[in-house]
Amino acid sequence: MSQVKVQTAVVGVGGYSGQELARILLHHPQLKGTPPVFAGRPEANTAKAESLVPLTAIHPRLMDNNGSAGLVIEPFSWDLLESRKVEVLFLATPHEQSREWAPEALKRNIRVIDLSGAWRLNEAGNRAVYKFEDEASDTAVAVQAKSIYGMPELHRDEIRDAQLVANPGCYATSIILALKPLVDANLLDLDRGIVCDSKSGVSGAGKAPTAKTHFMYAADNLSAYGVFGHRHTGELLEQLQLSPAQIVFTPHLLPIPRGILSTIYVWFKEATNAEAIQTRFLEFFANSPMVRVFPNGELPQIQYSAYTNFCDIGFQLAKDGKRCVIVSCLDNLLKGAAGQAVQNLNLMCGWQESEGLV
Amino acid sequence: MSQVKVQTAVVGVGGYSGQELARILLHHPQLKGTPPVFAGRPEANTAKAESLVPLTAIHPRLMDNNGSAGLVIEPFSWDLLESRKVEVLFLATPHEQSREWAPEALKRNIRVIDLSGAWRLNEAGNRAVYKFEDEASDTAVAVQAKSIYGMPELHRDEIRDAQLVANPGCYATSIILALKPLVDANLLDLDRGIVCDSKSGVSGAGKAPTAKTHFMYAADNLSAYGVFGHRHTGELLEQLQLSPAQIVFTPHLLPIPRGILSTIYVWFKEATNAEAIQTRFLEFFANSPMVRVFPNGELPQIQYSAYTNFCDIGFQLAKDGKRCVIVSCLDNLLKGAAGQAVQNLNLMCGWQESEGLV
Amino acid sequence: MSQVKVQTAVVGVGGYSGQELARILLHHPQLKGTPPVFAGRPEANTAKAESLVPLTAIHPRLMDNNGSAGLVIEPFSWDLLESRKVEVLFLATPHEQSREWAPEALKRNIRVIDLSGAWRLNEAGNRAVYKFEDEASDTAVAVQAKSIYGMPELHRDEIRDAQLVANPGCYATSIILALKPLVDANLLDLDRGIVCDSKSGVSGAGKAPTAKTHFMYAADNLSAYGVFGHRHTGELLEQLQLSPAQIVFTPHLLPIPRGILSTIYVWFKEATNAEAIQTRFLEFFANSPMVRVFPNGELPQIQYSAYTNFCDIGFQLAKDGKRCVIVSCLDNLLKGAAGQAVQNLNLMCGWQESEGLV
Amino acid sequence: MSQVKVQTAVVGVGGYSGQELARILLHHPQLKGTPPVFAGRPEANTAKAESLVPLTAIHPRLMDNNGSAGLVIEPFSWDLLESRKVEVLFLATPHEQSREWAPEALKRNIRVIDLSGAWRLNEAGNRAVYKFEDEASDTAVAVQAKSIYGMPELHRDEIRDAQLVANPGCYATSIILALKPLVDANLLDLDRGIVCDSKSGVSGAGKAPTAKTHFMYAADNLSAYGVFGHRHTGELLEQLQLSPAQIVFTPHLLPIPRGILSTIYVWFKEATNAEAIQTRFLEFFANSPMVRVFPNGELPQIQYSAYTNFCDIGFQLAKDGKRCVIVSCLDNLLKGAAGQAVQNLNLMCGWQESEGLV
Repeated sequence: MSQVKVQTAVVGVGGYSGQELARILLHHPQLKGTPPVFAGRPEANTAKAESLVPLTAIHPRLMDNNGSAGLVIEPFSWDLLESRKVEVLFLATPHEQSREWAPEALKRNIRVIDLSGAWRLNEAGNRAVYKFEDEASDTAVAVQAKSIYGMPELHRDEIRDAQLVANPGCYATSIILALKPLVDANLLDLDRGIVCDSKSGVSGAGKAPTAKTHFMYAADNLSAYGVFGHRHTGELLEQLQLSPAQIVFTPHLLPIPRGILSTIYVWFKEATNAEAIQTRFLEFFANSPMVRVFPNGELPQIQYSAYTNFCDIGFQLAKDGKRCVIVSCLDNLLKGAAGQAVQNLNLMCGWQESEGLV
Repeated sequence: MSQVKVQTAVVGVGGYSGQELARILLHHPQLKGTPPVFAGRPEANTAKAESLVPLTAIHPRLMDNNGSAGLVIEPFSWDLLESRKVEVLFLATPHEQSREWAPEALKRNIRVIDLSGAWRLNEAGNRAVYKFEDEASDTAVAVQAKSIYGMPELHRDEIRDAQLVANPGCYATSIILALKPLVDANLLDLDRGIVCDSKSGVSGAGKAPTAKTHFMYAADNLSAYGVFGHRHTGELLEQLQLSPAQIVFTPHLLPIPRGILSTIYVWFKEATNAEAIQTRFLEFFANSPMVRVFPNGELPQIQYSAYTNFCDIGFQLAKDGKRCVIVSCLDNLLKGAAGQAVQNLNLMCGWQESEGLV
Repeated sequence: MSQVKVQTAVVGVGGYSGQELARILLHHPQLKGTPPVFAGRPEANTAKAESLVPLTAIHPRLMDNNGSAGLVIEPFSWDLLESRKVEVLFLATPHEQSREWAPEALKRNIRVIDLSGAWRLNEAGNRAVYKFEDEASDTAVAVQAKSIYGMPELHRDEIRDAQLVANPGCYATSIILALKPLVDANLLDLDRGIVCDSKSGVSGAGKAPTAKTHFMYAADNLSAYGVFGHRHTGELLEQLQLSPAQIVFTPHLLPIPRGILSTIYVWFKEATNAEAIQTRFLEFFANSPMVRVFPNGELPQIQYSAYTNFCDIGFQLAKDGKRCVIVSCLDNLLKGAAGQAVQNLNLMCGWQESEGLV
Repeated sequence: MSQVKVQTAVVGVGGYSGQELARILLHHPQLKGTPPVFAGRPEANTAKAESLVPLTAIHPRLMDNNGSAGLVIEPFSWDLLESRKVEVLFLATPHEQSREWAPEALKRNIRVIDLSGAWRLNEAGNRAVYKFEDEASDTAVAVQAKSIYGMPELHRDEIRDAQLVANPGCYATSIILALKPLVDANLLDLDRGIVCDSKSGVSGAGKAPTAKTHFMYAADNLSAYGVFGHRHTGELLEQLQLSPAQIVFTPHLLPIPRGILSTIYVWFKEATNAEAIQTRFLEFFANSPMVRVFPNGELPQIQYSAYTNFCDIGFQLAKDGKRCVIVSCLDNLLKGAAGQAVQNLNLMCGWQESEGLV
């Protein structure tokens, strides 16, 4: 891959993650003078499929941001990507679309960072909730085998050379990062179960106007949903190697635009102390610039990481040394989506992992 | 009309105003044991048109409220209203529906309180913005002639005997009540113009999920809309007898569920003093239980009248005695809609004007 | 106690619970013409201790509400209560104040409903977190022995005759009501632990302006606090008869004005089914008008019970029949404070339990 | 001034503007390796005056941001600034403090960018509202004479060489930028008056916890304040050269963290058309990278400019060609404070005006 210039493309810039992706890429120091190709899904994200839609007509917020003025969203075609010599394609698309386009891109030697849930899960049982039409096809099986779960803190080296990166789910990122150091060190009494009580801002529910994204539904409210059935559960099971009986995960819809806070309840096998836990977290994330382990006895809040690419982790241990509450926070559109996607891009291009990510 | 029992009916209980109407009527002291007939517009507000939908399935909030448990939304038909001996029909429906149903109800000797904009405007020019299909029909002309603008503070006596009450718009209520005492007393320099800068909570935009009612659009935001073209302008012109050049009205979408605050800028013809203005307001509303004139030098806030049927009015006069800022507040779903509708019901039934309205 | 009139008094009307209490009592059907005596803690809740402060100067929201116009907050004295023949005294005061005043009131034969945490806990170990100065005094021990935990669903009969009712904590109410039916029936595997993840609106943090009640701290945020150390924990332990190792309770500060949602994780001893759980809840609350058990498979949301005195309870059982998520919601100022206090008043006066509580 | 390195210092980093200033300066491309000196006002902004307070202890949000880890807030002293060779001093302090320190800094040849209202106003009458103790002193008069109003769009050239830049008020910035092009071109009928109805997020009210910054006061609310008496009025009068009778300015407190929207009502002398107005705005701001003139017929919203340094301007003209509503938006902490301060720094240092400002 060229050291000088990397041509990226974004499909699905109309959504919230897509918008953040556009903003980050337009300001990325390594991409100066090489703005992404914005290719619209004709039927969904652009009003006028055939003509060129100015980027700032959809996102007034991006006006006059580093030369955004002239940028347009072009109707997607493989010829378009080829003629622009696109090397890395971001799919900020529904998973059905990603199931179709990622294989095609790989065939054309275009590397893919997919923000959907299409290629995150290795086990058919975990994928069942998505009801992929091509579930059993040879292509799908082969592509899944190549797919790398795009969490740099767990799979940094594989991501560098990946052809297809499956960018993790937002809830899953907040939970896996908080638990992985403890699970890997075999410290937890898994038979007592892990409880993950997560709360997310409304941007996590997507841009489509629905009864549940109506201001009157979400504001001054809190509601649990997807109890025992949320799609991100499979990511937890696979990345943490847990069985379904060992974990309960309940997402809630918070009346705020962005941010996730997960309150995670674990029981240690043996009574332990705060210093030991703190040390374990610090060691695990020693080379991870985008995770901030909080000082002992302090807990992160959504505000701290909102509008950043950080995942913040803190904890509180009960006096008995066994019961422990871990709190992890991140911005669901950044570390939970577009920011982590660029973090993966940085690794894939050999740049600094945190480059362009404030 | 019976002194003992009044049978009401509500069409459009599924919307925000309809829900408030249901809540108020179910607790109304004069309607104990006589709950409204809830009749659903089959195509719009109820999922299952043909069967009976429990009221609390649509509004869990109303569960176990004064016997709501057994109540159902029934498919609308004139036979239904007749068989239940409905005397007063609330239409919490889109204006197209009200244009069609109000005349029919009157024909059947059912009194109507219409919450839409269908019958509020006497002048064709002001009605133009609604593009009524039946604009020029004989029936429409005749019905409009019978329609009483349902603002008790201005038209109390006519409302008592009205067959058709056109419940005012929410913005219009907040502005007309604030200006009427001064305009009627001929105190204002109308040639300098009146500026009405109004801000409304999102419930005013209705229950349909749209791009503009999406939480992500409304939250952490403020936006002006309908500049020089909002439908409520006609009500201001007619009730205050102003010409279009004499008033500017700009509504804004506030990131809160409910409440309107109108900041109104007027110039007095002659330099005056605060006491005189205060006295004028107090006199005008002396017999109006649902208007609260604020102490001199204090201004109402949205919180004070939210969840009440009051319209709050305060003002601040500049030292020059001419420039004056009036602030009026109300709950757009109550005094701006369902509450005012019940205030009208109370007058129509000979009850205390504020009965059942906290 | 007189059947005709009951004279109440409220100390601490300046706070959020006090304001709600005033609103409810002013509209209570049994108290028409007998408004409460409002007695101000001179140093804390009223600006001018010596003079009479109009109620509506502190709470503009209460203006013109059922004769509130003439009401004043009077400097507190026992003579004042005596001269007005106060029979029931509401203490919406800090717990230190309630520790001092409740015994004095009892001595004077005034029944007390205390909204603070002063008299809720029977065990010294659980009271330790409050650091009561009079902890070991004979009076305190004697008064505590008379105190009835004011949760009608658990202690209805004792409340009727109580001299001192200790109104429960808001979090505690939401959790105890959700768990009591299952704990009492001995259905839960308590050794696996119960996790209570609670979220409360900001009014729960009180009216004093602090760094944590600043809009900029609370808005667009979520934060956990008081982990393993919240004062309401003792109420959970005593009312549910649990040991500390059996329960974890984590409160969070929600960016909304009012409402609590508790997500509660339990494990059943034996695999069960939803119908059995539903039946258990329905039976337990069969005579409790202020608890709404949700239809099987539906979960309550904060909005449903906000501005009401209901506690809403719903649940979801995992396919394994063992893991279960219970969600309970209430308005922290109503069922969690002032509303429940009036519910207790109703029982103490022999009125209908839900009277005056919408 | 050195081309290679510029040493800055910030006093008042503990406030909201100070925090944003720290964030921007830590990421400023021209300041890499030269972080600001953070000097705490001992009595106000730091808990431990004598010792060194880690920056991230006050602002967890800034953790691990471009080497913030080692940064501390040091007790302020002139020796500190001298020993660090500070060339530009940002005062994010109350105006009383800035009145005292700006003269001292100038004496020591340190250039000052003052974010308070201390040095913005040339006329004693306009300054009266601040009640400066040193109002008539020779020093104050001399310093005021050197002070440049730090709005680059109006005073770009003078700012480049300024010793003291008085950074404009947030409301004033939104209003002056919207009106200056029209006022300067003598297009407005000033005798009819200009109405400025402004709404600001709560961060504008400062970090001190008060009754008005309490979440319960601000949330779900809107309130007008400072009617006919807000401090920013003087800036409007001086920069637009208007008389008090020609303008009314009413600020409101919006229930959002950040952002200002000003709705401005003007009357043109002669009937005009939208194209002419649009052209006038575009010409006026042709060389101003931080003002975005909106496409004809589109109005900016708070969300578009929140978290950016842009001021957005749009307008709607009535059919009569005379009445016009202008809407301008900005982020009160950025273009309204810290961002505009850095914009001024950029000019003072000969850098690109928008450098480091996303």
